[in-house]
Amino acid sequence: MFLRNCWYVAAWSHEVADEGFLARTIIGLPVVLWRDSAREVVGFVDRCCHRGAPLSKGRREGDCIRCMYHGLLFDRSGKCVDIPSQDTVPANAHVRAFPVVERDRWIWIWMGDPARADPAAIPDTHWLDDPAWRGKPGYMHYDVSYRLITDNLLDFSHLAYVHATTLGGGGSDAYARVRPQVERLDRGVKVTRWLLDDEPAPFVTKLKRYPGKVDRWNIYDFLVPGILLMDSGSAPAGTGAPEGRRVDAAEFRSCQALTPETEHSTHYFFQQMHNFALDRPEVTQALYESIVAAFHEDQAMITAQSHTLAQAPDFEFMPIVADSALAQYARMLEKMIAEERAAGTKDAVVRTG
Amino acid sequence: MFLRNCWYVAAWSHEVADEGFLARTIIGLPVVLWRDSAREVVGFVDRCCHRGAPLSKGRREGDCIRCMYHGLLFDRSGKCVDIPSQDTVPANAHVRAFPVVERDRWIWIWMGDPARADPAAIPDTHWLDDPAWRGKPGYMHYDVSYRLITDNLLDFSHLAYVHATTLGGGGSDAYARVRPQVERLDRGVKVTRWLLDDEPAPFVTKLKRYPGKVDRWNIYDFLVPGILLMDSGSAPAGTGAPEGRRVDAAEFRSCQALTPETEHSTHYFFQQMHNFALDRPEVTQALYESIVAAFHEDQAMITAQSHTLAQAPDFEFMPIVADSALAQYARMLEKMIAEERAAGTKDAVVRTG
Amino acid sequence: MFLRNCWYVAAWSHEVADEGFLARTIIGLPVVLWRDSAREVVGFVDRCCHRGAPLSKGRREGDCIRCMYHGLLFDRSGKCVDIPSQDTVPANAHVRAFPVVERDRWIWIWMGDPARADPAAIPDTHWLDDPAWRGKPGYMHYDVSYRLITDNLLDFSHLAYVHATTLGGGGSDAYARVRPQVERLDRGVKVTRWLLDDEPAPFVTKLKRYPGKVDRWNIYDFLVPGILLMDSGSAPAGTGAPEGRRVDAAEFRSCQALTPETEHSTHYFFQQMHNFALDRPEVTQALYESIVAAFHEDQAMITAQSHTLAQAPDFEFMPIVADSALAQYARMLEKMIAEERAAGTKDAVVRTG
Repeated sequence: MFLRNCWYVAAWSHEVADEGFLARTIIGLPVVLWRDSAREVVGFVDRCCHRGAPLSKGRREGDCIRCMYHGLLFDRSGKCVDIPSQDTVPANAHVRAFPVVERDRWIWIWMGDPARADPAAIPDTHWLDDPAWRGKPGYMHYDVSYRLITDNLLDFSHLAYVHATTLGGGGSDAYARVRPQVERLDRGVKVTRWLLDDEPAPFVTKLKRYPGKVDRWNIYDFLVPGILLMDSGSAPAGTGAPEGRRVDAAEFRSCQALTPETEHSTHYFFQQMHNFALDRPEVTQALYESIVAAFHEDQAMITAQSHTLAQAPDFEFMPIVADSALAQYARMLEKMIAEERAAGTKDAVVRTG
Repeated sequence: MFLRNCWYVAAWSHEVADEGFLARTIIGLPVVLWRDSAREVVGFVDRCCHRGAPLSKGRREGDCIRCMYHGLLFDRSGKCVDIPSQDTVPANAHVRAFPVVERDRWIWIWMGDPARADPAAIPDTHWLDDPAWRGKPGYMHYDVSYRLITDNLLDFSHLAYVHATTLGGGGSDAYARVRPQVERLDRGVKVTRWLLDDEPAPFVTKLKRYPGKVDRWNIYDFLVPGILLMDSGSAPAGTGAPEGRRVDAAEFRSCQALTPETEHSTHYFFQQMHNFALDRPEVTQALYESIVAAFHEDQAMITAQSHTLAQAPDFEFMPIVADSALAQYARMLEKMIAEERAAGTKDAVVRTG
Repeated sequence: MFLRNCWYVAAWSHEVADEGFLARTIIGLPVVLWRDSAREVVGFVDRCCHRGAPLSKGRREGDCIRCMYHGLLFDRSGKCVDIPSQDTVPANAHVRAFPVVERDRWIWIWMGDPARADPAAIPDTHWLDDPAWRGKPGYMHYDVSYRLITDNLLDFSHLAYVHATTLGGGGSDAYARVRPQVERLDRGVKVTRWLLDDEPAPFVTKLKRYPGKVDRWNIYDFLVPGILLMDSGSAPAGTGAPEGRRVDAAEFRSCQALTPETEHSTHYFFQQMHNFALDRPEVTQALYESIVAAFHEDQAMITAQSHTLAQAPDFEFMPIVADSALAQYARMLEKMIAEERAAGTKDAVVRTG
């Protein structure tokens, strides 16, 4: 069950070359992404309307794609403009084209009703492509439902355990014992977590030296359908960070997007950025490596959890206080999906090849 | 859904050695093929009637097979003639033996009601074993339904795209734009396709030199349950090939057979033959290699199509004019299967171990 | 369909180290086995009650396990004693602990109603850890239902075919032609099989020299849920073994246990022991290697059988006289499972995380 009327991150800009095609399944639908001669990204369902051959195995002919099975030619809008074996092209011969927006090095796609696709609804991710910040783009593929990864990102108490030696706190589980503040947003939740007067996180010590303890924060919006936008960092303890004074701070921004591939697999796009040591690429690289290492820790745990759950379809989670944000988000998402289904989001459109 | 009362190609003659067994699944049933002491091929269901152990792991004892799990012995007709642990053999102890005919290096098997198995219904494939023709036997295994391969073989417009550099026409898609003639046969369709005054196909240029353009033809019967018998070739343009005068022609015959392994996998037997340059084995080899290369092009496209279709069970093909032959054939095959089911083809027989 | 109220072998003692965890699925349930500080084995469902993360990826803290996803801590009884993000622990926070008994180097687990777990019901396997006997522990994993392996072990006529060159008789199938005596036991069957005045089994000739023929016996109890306890051996022919005089005999004891992993996979624990040549470890090793080689012969046949059966869900076995023991056992086991289900064995308990 997926939300359809929303923007999903489909790819990094660099994944869609000027020539050729990127084939990627999104919420169960095969999609082919390509750039027209003006370098604008086009997204089609990756399935010829004739007999279902993938257009990503096709041939570019100017701003058209020719299916390389039986030769049907589709223009930039998805309309079929040539069927070699016949003189006329029927009006219903077309492939579905999805609204696509490229912004800040992410390519967003709208899988629902095109009439409702408003680019203004795309969250602000300008840090991804801002000279004041440095980061390295990341991608991971998960063989689990996006819901389990959402749950992971909405309860950072796991940093103390899953990431004890990377993002968490060296040996102590203080990070798990603080209570975050959770606020409801229009299309998500805001989580604010402060750990005062504690050791800096292991990954931070590789980037910046602190003589003593620090105040640490993770403040993030988690937005439908799976976008995390985070302000995090550390500053010397007691220098006023909680009140908004960031003195000698190591500040980070993180943009992360979960895009369901299928019910049981997920695309994960992420970039963590720093605004200090901008002239030191080794800091950018070290930050990237720490994040990737930590995300592999998540992947090992979540994949193991997914296997365990698959053995027991009737297992019921036992809620705890730390589930507050994820429970709020889950209710919100499920309500939106239910409303969308009740309103009869045009599945016919979705099915049109 | 398979047709049962028909002859399927089960194997090449050379696949069934004098000793040992060939185990192969055909329309979902495990079959073991072996040769008796007179070298006649015998086909049993590959499943001991006692506890289902495969007889292909058994032992030959003269013209009998002994199951090597608990020792039941079956004679050439499938009748059990020894159960080591008891003195008598019950009358119902037997394994199903299928009618089998070996002809022109193909071994045909009848998976339906044995009483209806008439060898006269086997199509003429004498080119496979005719000194006037040379060819090399081929086999491929497909992980797709035989229906998608049937469709492929019944619309040769794909030669212009899938086989642009092998069987099609160098760069041009003229081959896709000509209209074939489609005739209905008793148990299939006949497709006749001429391309006049065009470049020779890339694979032909490797076998025979033409100073100029050629007239090309592909004339084939496609017969239930999946047998293609083709006359194809090229002759210098304007020398009268369409009227039946084949002067300085490169002529080919092709015998191809699709045999469903399961609902989702298929055996593909094929041999393309030439009747010129009979004393040059390198021509036979080059022809074989061209055909195999082209069939791998088909396999890549059809397998990709199969994956795309698997993602969208409700996708409906959009018919085009070029589908004429495959649509006629599909209707014929489906009607025959429906009639067979309505007549209650003895599934009991089919299930008998 | 599994019997629940019975003792299953979960592991060899040496598989559960003093530190760390052994994760193993038993009758479809993930189980984690570990030793407390007194080296007693504890068995939990391997699934945190919070969100299903596997406890086998957790951390030992004294006689407790901490889940390393969000930090819940469980004591030796399965009770949750710490939830880091909150001050109190709800009463229902616990993971299911299974009754576990370690005896003679096997670790037994009770997967049903704990109130009915009586260690006195564990069969006598003292040979596994008896100085008068020598043997080497074995384990195999099967990708088939335990029922097919049970069937194999309850009809030793297969020794003449599957094990012709290992456990059977060199070239002759005399072993398959003798009739065993089958007696019904309270919770299983007893099978007694004598082959008089015949060649020694191939594996025996590697361990002990006999100048002439021997009398051979296999006498075993096969007990619910899949425990084989066997007295087997050979003695010079005519020296009175059938009457109980074992003169110059090669005697063996075998303890074997089948534990279903899932409906379609099985754990197989086994050890064959000898009571002669106790000072010759090479005899122990040779015996072990013979048994493992023979069990791989079984595995090849049973796995092939399983594949054949999977193709024909409606295939029905044809009973023969040699099936007597396995048919009796199957009826007994099926009756016990049906009674257990009718009595409503607390599935609720089973599901409790």
